[in-house]
Amino acid sequence: MPQVGDTSRVKSIEWIDEELLLLDQTQLPVDVVVEKQETIEQVWDSIKQLKVRGAPAIGVAGAYGLVVGMRGDTGLDREKFLEKLQERADYLDSARPTAVNLSWALKRVVAKAKQSAAGTGTELLQVVHEEAIEIHHEDEQLCKRIGENGVDLIKPGFGVLTHCNAGRLATSEYGTATAPMYLAHERGVAFRVYSDESRPLLQGSRLTSWELQEAGVDVTVITDNMAAHIMSQGLIDMVIVGTDRVAANGDVANKIGTMGVAILAKHFGIPFYVASPFSTIDLDTQTGADITIEERGDDEVTHFGLRRTAPEGIKVRNPAFDVTPNELVTGIITDRGMVQAPYSENLKDIFYAKA
Amino acid sequence: MPQVGDTSRVKSIEWIDEELLLLDQTQLPVDVVVEKQETIEQVWDSIKQLKVRGAPAIGVAGAYGLVVGMRGDTGLDREKFLEKLQERADYLDSARPTAVNLSWALKRVVAKAKQSAAGTGTELLQVVHEEAIEIHHEDEQLCKRIGENGVDLIKPGFGVLTHCNAGRLATSEYGTATAPMYLAHERGVAFRVYSDESRPLLQGSRLTSWELQEAGVDVTVITDNMAAHIMSQGLIDMVIVGTDRVAANGDVANKIGTMGVAILAKHFGIPFYVASPFSTIDLDTQTGADITIEERGDDEVTHFGLRRTAPEGIKVRNPAFDVTPNELVTGIITDRGMVQAPYSENLKDIFYAKA
Repeated sequence: MPQVGDTSRVKSIEWIDEELLLLDQTQLPVDVVVEKQETIEQVWDSIKQLKVRGAPAIGVAGAYGLVVGMRGDTGLDREKFLEKLQERADYLDSARPTAVNLSWALKRVVAKAKQSAAGTGTELLQVVHEEAIEIHHEDEQLCKRIGENGVDLIKPGFGVLTHCNAGRLATSEYGTATAPMYLAHERGVAFRVYSDESRPLLQGSRLTSWELQEAGVDVTVITDNMAAHIMSQGLIDMVIVGTDRVAANGDVANKIGTMGVAILAKHFGIPFYVASPFSTIDLDTQTGADITIEERGDDEVTHFGLRRTAPEGIKVRNPAFDVTPNELVTGIITDRGMVQAPYSENLKDIFYAKA
Repeated sequence: MPQVGDTSRVKSIEWIDEELLLLDQTQLPVDVVVEKQETIEQVWDSIKQLKVRGAPAIGVAGAYGLVVGMRGDTGLDREKFLEKLQERADYLDSARPTAVNLSWALKRVVAKAKQSAAGTGTELLQVVHEEAIEIHHEDEQLCKRIGENGVDLIKPGFGVLTHCNAGRLATSEYGTATAPMYLAHERGVAFRVYSDESRPLLQGSRLTSWELQEAGVDVTVITDNMAAHIMSQGLIDMVIVGTDRVAANGDVANKIGTMGVAILAKHFGIPFYVASPFSTIDLDTQTGADITIEERGDDEVTHFGLRRTAPEGIKVRNPAFDVTPNELVTGIITDRGMVQAPYSENLKDIFYAKA
């Protein structure tokens, strides 16, 4: 069976020598631990424990998880194999029931197997495996296309600010917000990245800075509240962030703090770009006002690790996301090209255009 | 000797029953520990270890520290007493050599003793003690006047955002940014405060939220990057922050993150006030560009407590302050009244007005 990905950098997910390898992201940035997934229970646990995280990455890991879960069952006949495949897909899906990409990828693999003409367990496993690889490849290609569509925005000497982690750790390769950066770096463009640490969960300092540093990109960590000062010093020429959902009018939901960065960028006349897979554009969501903002537990704000940093009984707000209004967005870099205002028209155009 | 301050709330500094009591702020918000200062070495250590912090509070603690340091020396004659007083003032000053208020308070006490007609050690100790109390009282009165000059800005139902700690923990009572809040609270105005946690050192979540909660003020902690979202929800009606230095043109140096809050406030049409003792206005500093921004160590950003949260060897920026340009400042609430634009004229007016 083929191998996916080059081996020059640590990847969030790899399939090498017939084995699924997952980087344990919970141990970053202190320890780099790549774990071979021996059993489907281990894959379930890796997804559950957020060792693998990021919507696309979870989907890919789930698809490969089915290969791991079924490779001992090549002796089964078609009917029994498909029955067990469905059962194990349901099992993996239960690791993170709200992760849309996980559910989507598992369904896709099961459907492919059912639709195939494969008559034996061995043949079916081959179908499952090929579909997992296809999902993996598609994710890589999608990210790479986002990179291609954004790379020319990064000029030599630029300072690029990003927020949270929409990087290759959250996908199988390149990431979304980071894709233009990786491509620019591969092409020898010299530029600097500033990574907001991204409280409360510090995805910026723990993950984004780690993956960029590991790839040799010049990256500097700042606390979220330093962005205005750094911008005022003329150090930032553009912002690129990821997104969890783009509404039909171009409003952008992303990690808490994104809107603040967009407002600062506008104040200083700095372009603000959002990198988004085409599939993250949700035309059924009319505007950002229709997006429910998840409010998470107090402990993420009142504690750091196990250490209390705010008084007992203090009131806390902990919205996980915010919505950046479309007028603050210079452009949305998708795998199908750059979309700019007027977003209501242009997002529709790209959505209904042939892929 | 008289006692200073009421006992209804824990104070940063108190002189009660002939003893200097300092709240150990390094243990907040988890433990509330008030330590009796038995020796001048203990006072030195409390200042050095940041158990007492905030420019005005350090000055007051230093002045009382001289009482603690000299109370065993009432048997000395005038000359010997003054000699030892000077020596001990120099010693205390060495605890934080760059703290202007500490040096100022110690010099003031020593000068007062030298200028007095007191002939004995007992009489000189009385002079030292009265001057310490005077410094303490003046700080309380100054903060209270800032409160009086700002209290009417806080209307019933208002949401007030503050950043870092310019509270009573940093002064002897009322604080500066918090003074209007404490006075409004005492007068029964119902309002809510949102406290930015203030990375990297978390003065907002550790100290501001603690002191407001302890005083019964309705306070909610948010991470710095949530301010834009909270403002967009219509929850903030005004911002009040403190300052480390106000330039002649009204540019305001304050804890890193302040400028970002000011830009967000402007974006949402929210008034942005700075509370400042008259003495913090520095007419010798023409503009904010003349203010050197202290860059602190990487560990504050790369670690949390002893836990590493950013990769080994990562580049970091850690500016301790930023400068908010005067055009973002709605008004500066001083102990001599509210100053508004044009700042270059109006700050000069208030500076040269009779106190």
